[in-house]
Amino acid sequence: MQQVTVELGDRSYPIQVGVGLLEGNDALAALARGRQVAVVTDSTVDALFGDRLTAVLEPLAHQVMRIVLPPGEQTKGWESLNRIFDRLLEGRFDRSSLVVALGGGVVGDIAGFAAATYQRGVDFVQIPTTLLAQVDSSVGGKTAINHARGKNMIGAFHQPRLVIADTAVLQSLPPRELSAGLAEVIKHGAIADVAYLDRVATAMPRLRAGDPETLAAAVVDSIRIKAAVVARDERESGARALLNFGHTFGHAIEAGAGYGKWLHGEAVGTGMVMATELSLRLGYLDSGDLARMKSVIGEAGLPLLGPAWPVARYLSYMSIDKKAVLGVPKFVVLESIGRAKVQKVEPDLVAGAITAHLAPATA
Amino acid sequence: MQQVTVELGDRSYPIQVGVGLLEGNDALAALARGRQVAVVTDSTVDALFGDRLTAVLEPLAHQVMRIVLPPGEQTKGWESLNRIFDRLLEGRFDRSSLVVALGGGVVGDIAGFAAATYQRGVDFVQIPTTLLAQVDSSVGGKTAINHARGKNMIGAFHQPRLVIADTAVLQSLPPRELSAGLAEVIKHGAIADVAYLDRVATAMPRLRAGDPETLAAAVVDSIRIKAAVVARDERESGARALLNFGHTFGHAIEAGAGYGKWLHGEAVGTGMVMATELSLRLGYLDSGDLARMKSVIGEAGLPLLGPAWPVARYLSYMSIDKKAVLGVPKFVVLESIGRAKVQKVEPDLVAGAITAHLAPATA
Repeated sequence: MQQVTVELGDRSYPIQVGVGLLEGNDALAALARGRQVAVVTDSTVDALFGDRLTAVLEPLAHQVMRIVLPPGEQTKGWESLNRIFDRLLEGRFDRSSLVVALGGGVVGDIAGFAAATYQRGVDFVQIPTTLLAQVDSSVGGKTAINHARGKNMIGAFHQPRLVIADTAVLQSLPPRELSAGLAEVIKHGAIADVAYLDRVATAMPRLRAGDPETLAAAVVDSIRIKAAVVARDERESGARALLNFGHTFGHAIEAGAGYGKWLHGEAVGTGMVMATELSLRLGYLDSGDLARMKSVIGEAGLPLLGPAWPVARYLSYMSIDKKAVLGVPKFVVLESIGRAKVQKVEPDLVAGAITAHLAPATA
Repeated sequence: MQQVTVELGDRSYPIQVGVGLLEGNDALAALARGRQVAVVTDSTVDALFGDRLTAVLEPLAHQVMRIVLPPGEQTKGWESLNRIFDRLLEGRFDRSSLVVALGGGVVGDIAGFAAATYQRGVDFVQIPTTLLAQVDSSVGGKTAINHARGKNMIGAFHQPRLVIADTAVLQSLPPRELSAGLAEVIKHGAIADVAYLDRVATAMPRLRAGDPETLAAAVVDSIRIKAAVVARDERESGARALLNFGHTFGHAIEAGAGYGKWLHGEAVGTGMVMATELSLRLGYLDSGDLARMKSVIGEAGLPLLGPAWPVARYLSYMSIDKKAVLGVPKFVVLESIGRAKVQKVEPDLVAGAITAHLAPATA
């Protein structure tokens, strides 16, 4: 087992990465002992790991409640959030309760937001069960629900007390979801560490085969990069924006297609191609860099081309993007592979980068 | 104009207290300049002060949006909160927006919670227009909405950037609401400063007449006491609980009667009588102390007797109270007038303190 600490002063917390951690864990035991514990999960994950986690918690906790939500992005809204609050209040869970999120990004985001706002905030443990959640959403304390007008529009920064990333659980993951998680792994290399990106490219066959040890090594490296960025900028006022590489394009694809059609990581995969193209058109990268990025994204099993929409459709979904400042969007671009920065970009240049990577229109 | 700073490190903020501050203010101007500003208010307050504040903000801000909610406690729920989010998103308000709460506790709590969670948190200014909000809810960063199963059950700690308490606006306040605000003024004296309590008792006729200068002096003293407590304990894990003196009893009255029947301050007034009785029965106070507290609470125009319910009804509303720890409620009691502490109390003693101050049952 390896441990990465996210350094945030009195909100610092450990992330444990390893194979088989779900079977029992001193850190989790210390947090659960004697408390009211609510395990928030979805029905898919509950069927796989719910009983196992409950068996670990039952002997320790004062009380264990399982709150099982429907799987999928549509769960990440007011209705499910209120369902969590209803259950917690019915069970008379008090301010010293512990919320454990067992699942992927949707479960982590909504359970985290519930923990952030239930009685103005209770403790929270993340047990991410997808690669995407292990390397991305479970690190950094971002929690949110969706609004009809945009994804993650309502939320809070609420750091967990502990994150447990057990790569053995990833063997249950459908290949498409594993690929989606690899998008964020690639992103971490692209923005911060070219040597790591090379290791990922080399290890790609073992990563895609779900080898737990290979995955654990990548998860640790990714978490180190993300944790370092978050420690410098907890509330996304500066450096943390670099983690949005590919995301402004990706959000437009996700939102434009209707949430759930594209996986977040798939949209980020294509979004990174467009953001790399943008970096090339700004004069930072050459065509070899673009080819290298397209190669590793393609090898991860991610789509390289966006939906065949008019460019205006992409741009309209970007202008409501929450990273916009008074309507003028900024973009994360690569100065070189392994080094990113944020800058404002003229809409024409953005349009060109999109147009260069669209799927052929179907008749 | 007097200024009290709430010392919370990088979340420190000034509270300005004076007569006529709404007419224009450098600190507000500095925060509003060039930004998207949403003024959240209710229709009663909007009719009185909405145009005046808008006239101050319009020349400074990039854009001013007025979000006018229905008045009353029933506004403090999901529906109004979502109405705020809908308006902000329709107006394409981004993460650098400023939310200004113009109103009493309900407006401050819901606008503050909207600011805490819109795009994971935007800046927030409080302009409290009731005495209760000026001395209590606008200091300390507590924001919340109600849930069917309990008041303030969903919320966040989100400190404002600036609070402006203009006591001239209190002249529009109905006498019943002024009295309700005086409950928290009395509370501050009772828990922290016996000399202040004496000054309040002496000034009571001028306070109840709404004299702006007398009110400003009391608001400054009250805010100093509350700000010092909040600075020691931002997230209510210790000292801040002392501010709940009278509130556990009071919440039972408010919730049991159905929110809106009793004003919060009225319920706290009666709750302080019961909490003083409890302190007497624990051996801390004598009957003279109880008489003194009843006198100042009565002179403030607050009710001294709770509704003629069976005691079990009170207790059942207390056990879901969010200050409970695994079902065993703690109470804030007075060791002497001017000095408070928290302790666990046996239910029988609580029941006795309630029974001693119930209204006669009506036939």
